[in-house]
Amino acid sequence: MALALALGRRGMGRVWPNPAVGCVIVRGGRVLGRGWTADGGRPHAETQALAQAGDARGATAYVTLEPCAHHGRTPPCAEALVASGVARVVVAVGDPDPRVAGRGIAILQAAGIAVTTGVREAEARADHAGFLRRVTEGRPWLTLKLAASLDGRIATATGESQWITGPAARARVHALRARHDAVLVGAGTARDDDPLLTVRGMGERPQPVRVVLSRDLRLPLDGQLARTARAVPLWLLHAAGADAAPWEALGVRCLPCPVEAGTLDLRGALEVLAAQGITRVFCEGGGQVAASLLDGDLVDELVLFQAGVALGAEGRPMLGALGIERLAEAPRLRLAGMEAIGGDVMSRWTHG
Amino acid sequence: MALALALGRRGMGRVWPNPAVGCVIVRGGRVLGRGWTADGGRPHAETQALAQAGDARGATAYVTLEPCAHHGRTPPCAEALVASGVARVVVAVGDPDPRVAGRGIAILQAAGIAVTTGVREAEARADHAGFLRRVTEGRPWLTLKLAASLDGRIATATGESQWITGPAARARVHALRARHDAVLVGAGTARDDDPLLTVRGMGERPQPVRVVLSRDLRLPLDGQLARTARAVPLWLLHAAGADAAPWEALGVRCLPCPVEAGTLDLRGALEVLAAQGITRVFCEGGGQVAASLLDGDLVDELVLFQAGVALGAEGRPMLGALGIERLAEAPRLRLAGMEAIGGDVMSRWTHG
Repeated sequence: MALALALGRRGMGRVWPNPAVGCVIVRGGRVLGRGWTADGGRPHAETQALAQAGDARGATAYVTLEPCAHHGRTPPCAEALVASGVARVVVAVGDPDPRVAGRGIAILQAAGIAVTTGVREAEARADHAGFLRRVTEGRPWLTLKLAASLDGRIATATGESQWITGPAARARVHALRARHDAVLVGAGTARDDDPLLTVRGMGERPQPVRVVLSRDLRLPLDGQLARTARAVPLWLLHAAGADAAPWEALGVRCLPCPVEAGTLDLRGALEVLAAQGITRVFCEGGGQVAASLLDGDLVDELVLFQAGVALGAEGRPMLGALGIERLAEAPRLRLAGMEAIGGDVMSRWTHG
Repeated sequence: MALALALGRRGMGRVWPNPAVGCVIVRGGRVLGRGWTADGGRPHAETQALAQAGDARGATAYVTLEPCAHHGRTPPCAEALVASGVARVVVAVGDPDPRVAGRGIAILQAAGIAVTTGVREAEARADHAGFLRRVTEGRPWLTLKLAASLDGRIATATGESQWITGPAARARVHALRARHDAVLVGAGTARDDDPLLTVRGMGERPQPVRVVLSRDLRLPLDGQLARTARAVPLWLLHAAGADAAPWEALGVRCLPCPVEAGTLDLRGALEVLAAQGITRVFCEGGGQVAASLLDGDLVDELVLFQAGVALGAEGRPMLGALGIERLAEAPRLRLAGMEAIGGDVMSRWTHG
């Protein structure tokens, strides 16, 4: 199962709206087949592992998520496993998708296959967190990335922000982008930094969807995002009534979102993304969006890159206003890990 | 020498104005004596190691700093080593004190003792950095400690700061205080936090001198610092002309410092401390003092404790204004180490 989980992770950020599943077929201590969800979500992991195994009769299949039971664009994997003649299926975690939800396992058991569930379930739940949250709560997993000076500033007073962290940290940011379905920024960051938001330096690979929050779509039509919209998906989340026509002419997908107190409601915006199939979102700021996400309890993991540079109180803050008066009101996160990357520190903080 | 260095470190923060030296006497692979500078700076390490050894004839003495050559309150250690009959002395680093400066080694060599120098010199230089800087530059080593939220805030907008970091991080702060000769804060921190600035939870031990920067001595005469001034040394660094009399009546030492552009000149203030014998200063803020120290290139090591809490842009900044417009102007520090302490992250950053 550890191998199946490692294989499954290969699909992270490239298989949405499907889960990134891994599958290993074993008989007599020998691995007959290995598979993971292919780019775009098909073929599924089980299909590929079975194909590689050829004859899987009597074998055990390890799958990181309950095999699907429904006819979608591919036939159900539960039936494929039955047809293969495997004797046993080990499942890490059940699939709460209402089209599956125990029926995958029921199909296997009805065919006389021994089924074990809950093996390395905590790891599998972590790996599938985006998929599970989308299916059960209708919103994606959200990783908030912040890159700042020692004193929590993301730019000088004049707006200079390139580069606070070093090349190794920036390369890691590309690797993190690559494991998410979408990269999200606020309109201020899109305007100020004119970013590309693509995954670079990692070879040819599917790109995450680039998403910008812009209530009124007042963004430069000649910026890097706009200019590359035909090559790499660009979605704009905006308020109803904003003029989407010039953007749609560029190949941009414009999605209206609910507005609350004059700004885009971030929970609503994330629900819009989930409805489009997005399971994992990587938010890269700016400070006001980051603060609103924390304030709205929408951050599942915060990844902080910190460089050994001091910018002082005039620098632009990592987080906008939170309206906190008492320490007891402040959002608390739990340290999940830390690493030196180049000369910078990366710390990861999770919810609760 | 590694053992001698470890022994020497025991004296850190408790032997000023003397260096915290370690000494080990070895003969035939057996350790005959171990010594380190005693509290208050006397007896010296060599004296204690030789006393423990008893008969040290023909032995090798490992000393982390060149033995002293001058008659101070104790007779010169170089002469004690000669009298002991040791055959060889290994020295980590020379003592630049003009009263020593090679004369300790010369005394040994004149008596026919074989002398080796420069063994583990880099480590010894790091351990003795405060002493060496005081002797050569007339100012102490400065460690700047900052404890902040993830977004670099040291208090809420209303000033609430206790506690951002957890008990394990606070215990570490006491351990760090204990390894310094003096703990320094600005007047704002002294007024706002009413701190004790003592080392607590580490048993009976010498306390570092508590130092507050206060240009006009406008500090509460009934605060915790003032109330404990007879038990634990309290020094106030102030501008000439401030009324020191009420403080001196409380047993506080008041030291006038140079003023520049209306505020105490921090380099000058540190020189005043060095002139009093202080070799290692632990500064605990606040934000404006921290910024001025960084701006003045006076920070040798920055220790940042960060808690998994977000306070937002209204929170009080870790660093005050630095007047930086371009990233290239910003003070840069080098990552020296990182550690998870309780649920907090401690990162250490050194100069250059």
